Amino acid sequence: MSDHVVAVVGATGAVGRTILSVLEERSFPLSGLRLLASPRSAGTIVSTSWGDVVVEDLDTADVTGVDIALFSAGGDRSRRYAPAFAAGGTVVVDNSSAFRMDPTVPLVVVGVNDAAAAEHHGIVANPNCTTMTLMMAAGPLHRAFGLESIVASSYQAVSGSGQKGVRELTGQIDVFRDQVAALMAGTWEDPGADLYSRPIGFNVIPEAGTATENGYTDEEMKLVYESRKILGIEDLRVEPTCVRVPVMVGHGVSATLRFSNDVGADQAIDVLNQATGLEVWTDKTPTPLDSAGIDEVLAGRIRNTIGEPGGINLWVVGDNLRKGAALNAVQIAELL
Amino acid sequence: MSDHVVAVVGATGAVGRTILSVLEERSFPLSGLRLLASPRSAGTIVSTSWGDVVVEDLDTADVTGVDIALFSAGGDRSRRYAPAFAAGGTVVVDNSSAFRMDPTVPLVVVGVNDAAAAEHHGIVANPNCTTMTLMMAAGPLHRAFGLESIVASSYQAVSGSGQKGVRELTGQIDVFRDQVAALMAGTWEDPGADLYSRPIGFNVIPEAGTATENGYTDEEMKLVYESRKILGIEDLRVEPTCVRVPVMVGHGVSATLRFSNDVGADQAIDVLNQATGLEVWTDKTPTPLDSAGIDEVLAGRIRNTIGEPGGINLWVVGDNLRKGAALNAVQIAELL
Repeated sequence: MSDHVVAVVGATGAVGRTILSVLEERSFPLSGLRLLASPRSAGTIVSTSWGDVVVEDLDTADVTGVDIALFSAGGDRSRRYAPAFAAGGTVVVDNSSAFRMDPTVPLVVVGVNDAAAAEHHGIVANPNCTTMTLMMAAGPLHRAFGLESIVASSYQAVSGSGQKGVRELTGQIDVFRDQVAALMAGTWEDPGADLYSRPIGFNVIPEAGTATENGYTDEEMKLVYESRKILGIEDLRVEPTCVRVPVMVGHGVSATLRFSNDVGADQAIDVLNQATGLEVWTDKTPTPLDSAGIDEVLAGRIRNTIGEPGGINLWVVGDNLRKGAALNAVQIAELL
Repeated sequence: MSDHVVAVVGATGAVGRTILSVLEERSFPLSGLRLLASPRSAGTIVSTSWGDVVVEDLDTADVTGVDIALFSAGGDRSRRYAPAFAAGGTVVVDNSSAFRMDPTVPLVVVGVNDAAAAEHHGIVANPNCTTMTLMMAAGPLHRAFGLESIVASSYQAVSGSGQKGVRELTGQIDVFRDQVAALMAGTWEDPGADLYSRPIGFNVIPEAGTATENGYTDEEMKLVYESRKILGIEDLRVEPTCVRVPVMVGHGVSATLRFSNDVGADQAIDVLNQATGLEVWTDKTPTPLDSAGIDEVLAGRIRNTIGEPGGINLWVVGDNLRKGAALNAVQIAELL
């Protein structure tokens, strides 16, 4: 791999920071590092293993000579800047949802559909974090057995909403901590939800994302459409429910998978034991806390379906900032 | 209703205390109140709206003349004492799992299968709290449309494990609160899980209950077997995943329901709007915090299935100490 000039766009956000950590951990072969962010963050000095880097203003920076740009600055900025970067010869790995369903943009989970990355026209999209986590198990199982349907309920961490999600949970825990009896009695004092529609401290919000016309949230529809695109199954049947939980990091998914033929839990475990980037835990149950800070997605509770035999019930959990976002983006850059 | 002598067995536990509150709120027509608990709690004086009551030792108390005993003292004590109470003429409403699957013992969700209570031979069983919550929606939908299958993932509060669950979460939050960065990085200091297999603070544990031989937990198998018994559907297909979440009170369930014929979300909402003990929320999403301290189970996010049309995806949440336990037990007593 020859050395490249790499730009991180949205460098001061939760995912941007993790991208920088992942680049450092993997000693990414770069000859130059540029950090770009909104005018508000421009001028900040960030210490990296390649020396101190001054954050530049995305609106005004000249990005001539940047080979790869890892975007994690929200869909609006991606739509505005990514095509221009690509037109100038930069390959963009975009973490937003802006281009994921564009038929000319590959949507890549490294370890699942790597070959798709080669088809890019300047932009490669990084999937939604919940979808990514589930695909790490669903991908290998699909290749082995032919996936037909998924029923999924998620348990999504607040860092999936960025640093403001973490701050909202932390603040509410502080307010709620001394109200245990009031929480039990339903007489709690509202700590004032801002980011989410309801308090997330000591609560779960069974509606992650923004409502769409069909009653599902955009987050849920991503699980439907992105899964189909990543796995290349146009008619994959998905029933999605996305729920926010008071966890800092680590998105979990409880899923029922069905295949074109009956599959047993032992067969599924054998397949997943061979998968890259995934660890199967059979002696204990992997939790979000176990997944935090590691690259591997963890799978557990792989059981034969009991209501209607022939399918698999399982649990997967992964660090939404790493494999769910930053790690996969860097892995895509490594592929390119 | 003539006045009765009522005993609360396990009066000092989380559910026992809630039973007492519910009896007071409903001005239950009782002519005498007895509070029984383990020797450790005997002698405690409890203030009630019927005056101060001294907690008696369950092992030595003479319960002659008790008409109704509301048991919530664990399966072992139910197995040991409930048959003796029943033999002496007391009707036992048992909140443990000890007798739920006994074919001679009715398993009753008031509002769903009230008529079954009349068939008792001295013991009526109160269902599992997660099952109860789901049945409040599944029952009316079954009567209207003929339920065939359920795929369910739960979000269960720590008070479902009693006061020690609440203490464990509270203690871990205290330890974790100042470790936000460490929680994100996976370098957190273990606060020492005791009741649960893993820390529950800022985490979810996708294995509520105790593992059984088939890979499902006892809690998950209750959702299978108790649903079948309550609804009277021997071949009901259930795929259960029970997950503990860091919530004080309020069990939620994300479920996909399928019926003998196609059902639309509007039809389901119409049916559930007529149901007793259940509120349908369509303008906002009901959360565990919203359910805390109230008698009604809340249903929301009632959507047409999109993967395979014809079914319903929905969310239900209820106070696990009230309708999930104490309230239903008192409602059974009111039926008797």
